[in-house]
Amino acid sequence: MPNKVDEARVQVARANRIIANEGVLDAFGHVSMRHPTDPGRYLLSRSRAPELIEPEDVLEFTLDSEPVKPPTTRLYGERVIHGEIYKARPEVMAVCHHHAASILPFCVSGVELKPVYHLGATMGQEVPFWDSRDEFGDTNLLVQKPEEGASLARALGANWTVLMRRHGATVAGRSLEELVFRTIYTVRNAAMQLEAHLLGHVSPLSAEERRLGGDYNLQPGPIARAFEYWSVRLDKLEGTAPARKKPAAKKAAPAKKAPAKAAKRGKVKRR
Amino acid sequence: MPNKVDEARVQVARANRIIANEGVLDAFGHVSMRHPTDPGRYLLSRSRAPELIEPEDVLEFTLDSEPVKPPTTRLYGERVIHGEIYKARPEVMAVCHHHAASILPFCVSGVELKPVYHLGATMGQEVPFWDSRDEFGDTNLLVQKPEEGASLARALGANWTVLMRRHGATVAGRSLEELVFRTIYTVRNAAMQLEAHLLGHVSPLSAEERRLGGDYNLQPGPIARAFEYWSVRLDKLEGTAPARKKPAAKKAAPAKKAPAKAAKRGKVKRR
Amino acid sequence: MPNKVDEARVQVARANRIIANEGVLDAFGHVSMRHPTDPGRYLLSRSRAPELIEPEDVLEFTLDSEPVKPPTTRLYGERVIHGEIYKARPEVMAVCHHHAASILPFCVSGVELKPVYHLGATMGQEVPFWDSRDEFGDTNLLVQKPEEGASLARALGANWTVLMRRHGATVAGRSLEELVFRTIYTVRNAAMQLEAHLLGHVSPLSAEERRLGGDYNLQPGPIARAFEYWSVRLDKLEGTAPARKKPAAKKAAPAKKAPAKAAKRGKVKRR
Amino acid sequence: MPNKVDEARVQVARANRIIANEGVLDAFGHVSMRHPTDPGRYLLSRSRAPELIEPEDVLEFTLDSEPVKPPTTRLYGERVIHGEIYKARPEVMAVCHHHAASILPFCVSGVELKPVYHLGATMGQEVPFWDSRDEFGDTNLLVQKPEEGASLARALGANWTVLMRRHGATVAGRSLEELVFRTIYTVRNAAMQLEAHLLGHVSPLSAEERRLGGDYNLQPGPIARAFEYWSVRLDKLEGTAPARKKPAAKKAAPAKKAPAKAAKRGKVKRR
Repeated sequence: MPNKVDEARVQVARANRIIANEGVLDAFGHVSMRHPTDPGRYLLSRSRAPELIEPEDVLEFTLDSEPVKPPTTRLYGERVIHGEIYKARPEVMAVCHHHAASILPFCVSGVELKPVYHLGATMGQEVPFWDSRDEFGDTNLLVQKPEEGASLARALGANWTVLMRRHGATVAGRSLEELVFRTIYTVRNAAMQLEAHLLGHVSPLSAEERRLGGDYNLQPGPIARAFEYWSVRLDKLEGTAPARKKPAAKKAAPAKKAPAKAAKRGKVKRR
Repeated sequence: MPNKVDEARVQVARANRIIANEGVLDAFGHVSMRHPTDPGRYLLSRSRAPELIEPEDVLEFTLDSEPVKPPTTRLYGERVIHGEIYKARPEVMAVCHHHAASILPFCVSGVELKPVYHLGATMGQEVPFWDSRDEFGDTNLLVQKPEEGASLARALGANWTVLMRRHGATVAGRSLEELVFRTIYTVRNAAMQLEAHLLGHVSPLSAEERRLGGDYNLQPGPIARAFEYWSVRLDKLEGTAPARKKPAAKKAAPAKKAPAKAAKRGKVKRR
Repeated sequence: MPNKVDEARVQVARANRIIANEGVLDAFGHVSMRHPTDPGRYLLSRSRAPELIEPEDVLEFTLDSEPVKPPTTRLYGERVIHGEIYKARPEVMAVCHHHAASILPFCVSGVELKPVYHLGATMGQEVPFWDSRDEFGDTNLLVQKPEEGASLARALGANWTVLMRRHGATVAGRSLEELVFRTIYTVRNAAMQLEAHLLGHVSPLSAEERRLGGDYNLQPGPIARAFEYWSVRLDKLEGTAPARKKPAAKKAAPAKKAPAKAAKRGKVKRR
Repeated sequence: MPNKVDEARVQVARANRIIANEGVLDAFGHVSMRHPTDPGRYLLSRSRAPELIEPEDVLEFTLDSEPVKPPTTRLYGERVIHGEIYKARPEVMAVCHHHAASILPFCVSGVELKPVYHLGATMGQEVPFWDSRDEFGDTNLLVQKPEEGASLARALGANWTVLMRRHGATVAGRSLEELVFRTIYTVRNAAMQLEAHLLGHVSPLSAEERRLGGDYNLQPGPIARAFEYWSVRLDKLEGTAPARKKPAAKKAAPAKKAPAKAAKRGKVKRR
């Protein structure tokens, strides 16, 4: 079924570019998707910065993270993050690994990341830590060997997000859309949690609020709403959004006129 | 009076896009306006990210938050926030609900939000908290039932801004322009208050300074000035602002030339 | 001498837009310049957001802050800030009043702003506080009466920057270029001082370092360098900067090619 | 070999613009490269803001920081930073001096900068401090005299990054690409370390993790990946990136369609 795979390639490329455009990914990090028809494979880009990924860059890998076709380009060294999670979690359909600026302070300090607002509840009930030192001692911190990927997958367990000490985060989803939503709003939640911490008190969601809030926001409606937003923002950046009509917008701007009229009526003339 | 409603639809759409463009709203949150001729109705978009809302998206609702015409699209689940406040507060003409990044730390920590500069005084004398747990226990945190909306409206009371624990803020205004001004400058004030807190001491406005400062800035003059600014910024983003003339701008840039000339005159040649 | 005044109008307009473009001014705040040929007058825009100011908006005022010609538009309410400083300080040629986000935490907390790096030394040896409460009790916090402006000018004294409690900052310069430089780098310094404070220790410049560092950076050379930068950034935003040639830039990008070549030579293929 | 030098000029100019575009450099700071064929010379721009530097601006200097040809323009006052490091460290091929906002809090507070994630490990094992006061007492803080540059080079020692108290940072690299990578990721690491500090605990990389992490990321593969990213971002800003095809992008956006379809299937209609 070449059509389904081609469509998936476009989706994976756009998911990478969307998450990059929202400030979560920079030159590094990657987003994958389980193969749409063969659950024993997954789709991931060749080694390239997420913001630049095009459908042609997206290749097929076995769950052992071997490329299905002999590669002609460099591959990501941390592919096993994806392969080992797909192996361990059959219901996982998409994975993102990143080093977002607001997440790292938690990875460095060891302070637990918690949902502090309803949209953050999509991160899951708990966010465990994984420390490469525990099983592997001093490394370059990258997850490159199958046993390292399997260890990370074990730390993730039945959760949806795992923080990697002195490294970053890995996020899983039951669909690519769910993954993108969870990734972005977990990053937003982290920044809010840090600032609440600075105000002196973090009062997170209760267990039941986490469950209800997470379930609500990962329904098709909220996800569709967020995806339309992220997609149009990406299209704007990439110059592929349709242009607005200039005169119509000019004529139809009474929000600007209204206060001006009000000003004429008003008595105050200063400042 | 179809003309007044059409104009109001444009205003509501632009208010959503302006507040989004100023970084307060993302994929979620919404801005409504009381119906310009029927105080028993209000205008709110179909379910869509604020940055994308067009006049055609804006629908009419009764104060019970039921759509006047059978909807053909998804609606916001939190409409009752708007309807119940319009019911409880006849003088309120516009409402905004949002989850701004600088506000959430206060919603999470429970630290009171206070006006710390004159523009922040527009938030109102006091900003009460509402906690969905108090009356409704564990929920998904969204305000979806009429009784939840009514509870929130009671917490707002006679104030203009209410913080929702682990959720966000809801803001009211006597006009759409006042609402936009209050929403944006309350968000700016929150960031400043947090940083003053980090410096060790928050010295807020006195009660009388709040009253005088708020009243001053919500007059037609300051509102018109701010609205022209936000409108042009939106037009720039959307590509509907008129282009500047290139050569005129080139020729008329002596600020650039002046120091160059000064440099020639000066003795210092280094760095 | 209409030419000198016309040129000055362009400079004042661009100074407003430059400082706005660098994130210091938003809808409010203003930049003025002493009249280039009549020291008993100054040039300031009509009431308008700084980012939008054009030369035609810039009007002449007496040092009592009265418009020289009967105004046909709204004027800033805080003109006396400018007029009273020009009166008190004959060597001051330009004044900026603003509410920058990084400055306000100092105005709110009362923590002293200090030069923490050489560019911040341009703020001057000391930055005094002015509190409208001291002489005027509870006000709307705006500086609107001549006696309020005179009081602020006294608090500024022989310094170049004064912080206004619960309000903002006012900055003076011996030239418009010096003023812009001082304003922008004082704002940058404030953000750095706050973060050093968070790290637990603020070690500012010594008195002599302040003098030497300030004097160095306000010489024509550094000012010209910074002004070219700010001017081109403004021209880019406004679409008036000359376009780069596409093919030349493409061909001349070996920084991109070099590591690619290196990658081929290298042995590492992963990550 | 004029070709090699011309190519190097383009590289130096782009490295300046890339680091500026990533937010590390503003009007001040500079990036140099050792001469590609004569190790007794280096290439550095005339005095100009990094974002504006073109190949024509890049001049040749001796290691005593004297211009090879009589200059017709102003030169940087801090050239000796570059010359003295090239003298002291034959393996250094590129140098950057900057005042990045996230680095300064460390320079002001004296808190040690440490690698807190694998990409930050590129800063080197240790980041020493240099204080101009120690040898030179009160100065304008700039490094302008050969003995000041030599003192800074001694403080750098065998390391790759040195923090300058109340001033900024100087970074060295074995290639221009390594230098750019180290500079940018050290700045990112600093922001993360500060926020981890605020969370209450900084747990940095071990000595061996620093070595392994730094070595890994400075290999040609990761460097090429990051450089493609930074280069395309610069090309986008400068308007020299190739335009995307509009219709293709429109047709190929199923990520947007997919959740919309899901929404139709789903039962939830609200929020």
